[in-house]
Amino acid sequence: MYIMERQNCLPILLSFLLVFLLSVTTSKAQTNHTTNVAVHPMDPLTVQEINQVRGILTLYAANKSLSLYSVVLEEPPKSDVLRWRQGDPLFPRRASVIARFDEGPILILYVDIKSGQVDRATTSPLSGYPFLSLDELVTASSAPFTSVAFNKSITDRGVDLADLICAPLSPGMNSSYNLFVWWFGKKEENRKLIKVQCFITENTINFYMRPIEGLTVIVDLYTSQVVEVSDHGKHIPIPNPSNTDYRYSAQNNSNKNAKPINPISVEQPNGPSFTVKNNHQITWANWEFHLKPDPRAGSIISGAKFRDPYSGEIRNVMYKGMVSELFVPYMDPTESWYFKTYMDAGEYGLGLTASSLEPYNDCPKNARYMDAVFVTNDGKPFVRSNIICVFERYAGDIAWRHTQTAIAGEEIREVRPKVTLVARMVSTIGNYDYIVDWIFQTDGRIRIEVSLSGITIVKGTKYKNMEEVPKEEDLYGTLVSENIIGVQHDHFVAFYLDMDVDGPNNSFVKVDIRKQKTSPGESPRKSYLKATRNVAKTEKDAQIKLSLYEPSEFHVVNPNKNSKVGNLVGYKVEPGANAASLLDLDDPPQIRGAFTNNQIWVTPYNESEIWAAGTFAWQSQGDDTLATWSNRNRAIENKDIVVWYILGFHHITCQEDFPVMPTVSAGFDLKPVNFFDWNPILGARPNFEKDLPSCQANGHT
Amino acid sequence: MYIMERQNCLPILLSFLLVFLLSVTTSKAQTNHTTNVAVHPMDPLTVQEINQVRGILTLYAANKSLSLYSVVLEEPPKSDVLRWRQGDPLFPRRASVIARFDEGPILILYVDIKSGQVDRATTSPLSGYPFLSLDELVTASSAPFTSVAFNKSITDRGVDLADLICAPLSPGMNSSYNLFVWWFGKKEENRKLIKVQCFITENTINFYMRPIEGLTVIVDLYTSQVVEVSDHGKHIPIPNPSNTDYRYSAQNNSNKNAKPINPISVEQPNGPSFTVKNNHQITWANWEFHLKPDPRAGSIISGAKFRDPYSGEIRNVMYKGMVSELFVPYMDPTESWYFKTYMDAGEYGLGLTASSLEPYNDCPKNARYMDAVFVTNDGKPFVRSNIICVFERYAGDIAWRHTQTAIAGEEIREVRPKVTLVARMVSTIGNYDYIVDWIFQTDGRIRIEVSLSGITIVKGTKYKNMEEVPKEEDLYGTLVSENIIGVQHDHFVAFYLDMDVDGPNNSFVKVDIRKQKTSPGESPRKSYLKATRNVAKTEKDAQIKLSLYEPSEFHVVNPNKNSKVGNLVGYKVEPGANAASLLDLDDPPQIRGAFTNNQIWVTPYNESEIWAAGTFAWQSQGDDTLATWSNRNRAIENKDIVVWYILGFHHITCQEDFPVMPTVSAGFDLKPVNFFDWNPILGARPNFEKDLPSCQANGHT
Repeated sequence: MYIMERQNCLPILLSFLLVFLLSVTTSKAQTNHTTNVAVHPMDPLTVQEINQVRGILTLYAANKSLSLYSVVLEEPPKSDVLRWRQGDPLFPRRASVIARFDEGPILILYVDIKSGQVDRATTSPLSGYPFLSLDELVTASSAPFTSVAFNKSITDRGVDLADLICAPLSPGMNSSYNLFVWWFGKKEENRKLIKVQCFITENTINFYMRPIEGLTVIVDLYTSQVVEVSDHGKHIPIPNPSNTDYRYSAQNNSNKNAKPINPISVEQPNGPSFTVKNNHQITWANWEFHLKPDPRAGSIISGAKFRDPYSGEIRNVMYKGMVSELFVPYMDPTESWYFKTYMDAGEYGLGLTASSLEPYNDCPKNARYMDAVFVTNDGKPFVRSNIICVFERYAGDIAWRHTQTAIAGEEIREVRPKVTLVARMVSTIGNYDYIVDWIFQTDGRIRIEVSLSGITIVKGTKYKNMEEVPKEEDLYGTLVSENIIGVQHDHFVAFYLDMDVDGPNNSFVKVDIRKQKTSPGESPRKSYLKATRNVAKTEKDAQIKLSLYEPSEFHVVNPNKNSKVGNLVGYKVEPGANAASLLDLDDPPQIRGAFTNNQIWVTPYNESEIWAAGTFAWQSQGDDTLATWSNRNRAIENKDIVVWYILGFHHITCQEDFPVMPTVSAGFDLKPVNFFDWNPILGARPNFEKDLPSCQANGHT
Repeated sequence: MYIMERQNCLPILLSFLLVFLLSVTTSKAQTNHTTNVAVHPMDPLTVQEINQVRGILTLYAANKSLSLYSVVLEEPPKSDVLRWRQGDPLFPRRASVIARFDEGPILILYVDIKSGQVDRATTSPLSGYPFLSLDELVTASSAPFTSVAFNKSITDRGVDLADLICAPLSPGMNSSYNLFVWWFGKKEENRKLIKVQCFITENTINFYMRPIEGLTVIVDLYTSQVVEVSDHGKHIPIPNPSNTDYRYSAQNNSNKNAKPINPISVEQPNGPSFTVKNNHQITWANWEFHLKPDPRAGSIISGAKFRDPYSGEIRNVMYKGMVSELFVPYMDPTESWYFKTYMDAGEYGLGLTASSLEPYNDCPKNARYMDAVFVTNDGKPFVRSNIICVFERYAGDIAWRHTQTAIAGEEIREVRPKVTLVARMVSTIGNYDYIVDWIFQTDGRIRIEVSLSGITIVKGTKYKNMEEVPKEEDLYGTLVSENIIGVQHDHFVAFYLDMDVDGPNNSFVKVDIRKQKTSPGESPRKSYLKATRNVAKTEKDAQIKLSLYEPSEFHVVNPNKNSKVGNLVGYKVEPGANAASLLDLDDPPQIRGAFTNNQIWVTPYNESEIWAAGTFAWQSQGDDTLATWSNRNRAIENKDIVVWYILGFHHITCQEDFPVMPTVSAGFDLKPVNFFDWNPILGARPNFEKDLPSCQANGHT
């Protein structure tokens, strides 16, 4: 969630606005964005193009006021991109725009930049609204103060309004108690709503740890009306601020009590081994791919290809990979908490909320940075510098090894160090920080890793110690400090993986690993494991629930291409640690987040099926989700297919998460399986001492 | 498995022997082992002590010949070790010995080194035999050549005996076809057996890729008799050696086709931040622990303690952690393969098979190394140098972070780099290489990671291409190259984790995460997740099968100690990716490897319950496993308890595994949970540019 702040009774300042201001004034940009020109079909809109789009839309809108929720590149058709070669002229550049003119409906428009035409302007028949616009945030910020009840609730608590800071919370799911599924109560129908909850900044910068518990204001974003003020927290004290400040400058000696770590650095005195061409085209080892920031998805990898070390051929692996949605349902059914079931990509935007990365800490010394050009709500381009970093990682790990002592007294020991390439973005959605790493390996693997840090959102409570708590389960979380409960919640990250293994037409094969009993007399063994390949014919065959006891491998193969010894070339999706959604299938949050009904899905490629919780996630009702699409049960064998992987975390909080949470990570791999005729890094070079740098300590340590 | 080799018709040379010879002649030792003296109760036996033990046993054996299978420190009672403080005198040093005198039974002896007494000498009433002795290996090596049938099988294939290299395979489970469970057929009862299978070294150093398929010799290790020669592979060609050599020196240009990676190195110009005292006592950041190599377990961590950054108190976390067993059942029920169900720790020894690590490749430049002192079969000490490495890792990752943009125009961005300490050993059990990392984190976590590499063991086949194969499943694996099948198999690593969270008496708590339906009218939500704490009273309560759909957290808590706000202090076992054994529970391999029936077990501390597949794993019959112990269902609440975590891998091979396998990894975490009152690295220092080194390229790159 974002944060809004009230200072000295001025209108509340918005983080959204602040981020824009900070970004526009930054001078760290890696590129001259004013003159930058797109050269690749997947390149994001440039400053010049965004200005052109604004001009076109202003004309198109005539005298109506223009509110832009999203302005991004409308990617050319996939078939065009696939046949495009470096140096070819670009296809006509188009923008995809989500906008509202005056008080009209939400429109989706396609703008042809060169011709200056708006090609198409449609409304959506489906539920939901886009991200907040700046105007809407201003509305959300000022509206609560028009409410006598709200102001009284604040002052009744003895809180100075100047210490108030409020969060604009997506309203999640229905707030109706009716038996029939009414997505929103009558008072909420056909209105874009926001819920506002507040914290106090007095004596801490970590105001999240000082909630004004139980006070919620519902605001109609279109009419600026306060729809409802509810206060269920008058009896709940505001937690005290001790130990909440996480800044290094604020630590006292006891917190700095850890034995310091000597400086340690990843050094590449000859420079990195990767190149970045035209801002977005990365080549490293045998990989090449296009990398760009996106306001909603965070970072987008496209056109990932691997040069086969044996044939020299450049081989397609993945047309596009990105985060599609990030669903965070909290597990507290009470009035001030039940609705907290965020869709962070669709409601807030993983790119819009991404930080400029901090050199030496967010990314190591050897990192290179990439900027984003995003668009304000009035159509102006702005630069978020250093939003992505790319670096080579050497963690002391081993890519492959073997020791052989048996040969004629000669010991053979061959070991290859493991170096990978990481592309990282960090999104901070209010309290939480999500680190998303795309990690490319020399052996053809792509590892995708998500790490969670930041501030766990907490609930005020009257309890100071567990001994006062009559029934622990009714806390809906853990008492992490005096008067503070870390509420339990899940995180589900939906990954969109448009695999094109040696071409667009692929099949999804479940390699089922099952116990096979032997026949009497067949073997002294009574059982063994047998692997059976089952090709998914339609989407429902590929709605996968992972199981430890009925395990499978999940191969994306090219049914039209064999390896040297006749296996189908493929990549497999290799899950790591994961967590499943356990909510009722007919619970509104689960209907909205129905992409979490399975851990893997496969759909036929469809350029409109991109966002797993729907194009419009704010107040969505689950009529446009991955589950809806997949249940059509279309054919997926030997088709252009998209694989979806849902990565989940259950978060039962603990005191160590207070006041800022040590990173936890999970991920999965895309791994070549009979894609190469043999180990693609058989020829890799070992480290030799003479190649490594000479270093000296630098300055004060 | 180990490897034995026949050279120019000399008796077959043994890798076992070779490793010893290589080790004795090494000059890389970090310590003067001749004069080294034990100073800590957990210190392994020194060269001097081993020599004393040999002297004592030689006297004790009178004129009998002495064959020693194992000579290790008999650790003092845990209660003694717990009260020992640095500088205290050592408890009487004792050795635990497994030996055979002449042709007598296997004996377990305890030797008091100072008094020169053998305290106790017992036989085991249970099934199984210890590792191979050198004498037994010599027997296994020469016996096959006394068989006319064996020699004829070799020469019939046109193989030159000088190219022969053979592997001494543990016979696994019963080879009887009888309906009753006879663990071994009549011909095998009461005999220590070995199975020998051979490869050819002609034109490759990677002989594993050139199996003489289907030829198995069973040898009685006590009588040197050939019990049986079976040959089911006369029609199977020996695969050709092309592309099998993995040495860097043997790569041609096409294999070196990958774009080179520029030198990259982890640099610490001020040196490492850890200290190693008395060879084995490591301190780093807030951690301290004892680290030593063990012939059977690999590396042993003991006395792991963390200095609380807030109280300054040194707090116990884990009394002892190590690999207890490593079970590798292959999934091919046919005559030459069904028995391959290795217990690599108990049958071969993870320390005995561990390599001297290769600087710059097995471990990074900033690593420090530790040697092992092991014992030959005739009781002589020998040094395996550089068997463990310890290094600090900085992989560019983030320990915690948060960006806060809302405060009065001031952006707060606090990020802490993640530096960890890795203790690594690599065991090469014949073909396979296992990298076991114990990774200590500043936030109190211990991550344990196992990586697999080396050579996948293969089966010869007549097929050159999948199009010739009538039924793919009957391959029991994947055709990874012409005439070569990579046979599918599992790996299960059993970890022994004697947790002592703030003291020995702990409880095991399952925190069950389950769907809770709301009552009508309670909430607009129909469901949420509820966490319920269930304390395991007895062992059966703690026989855990992991489940994605009925998930739990697994806490080891100290029921006698509360955190500041009244939570029980604890550590949790946090699984990562895992695989379960799916074999029939009454299948002999599963009975022997019954510790894989669950993924987590908890037993009361018992100094005799150390090895999950039994003290004697060779030809064991499953009467002394973790499952046997646990099924006694003893009380475990508020007791000194041991947690066992079973980490599994299913390995369906692919062509990329040929001829040497890119590393795959999995692991799990031990993570503080309400152990600290708040984030223990709140006070950690960020990286500052001025602290990082200045480096220059070195030599030719």
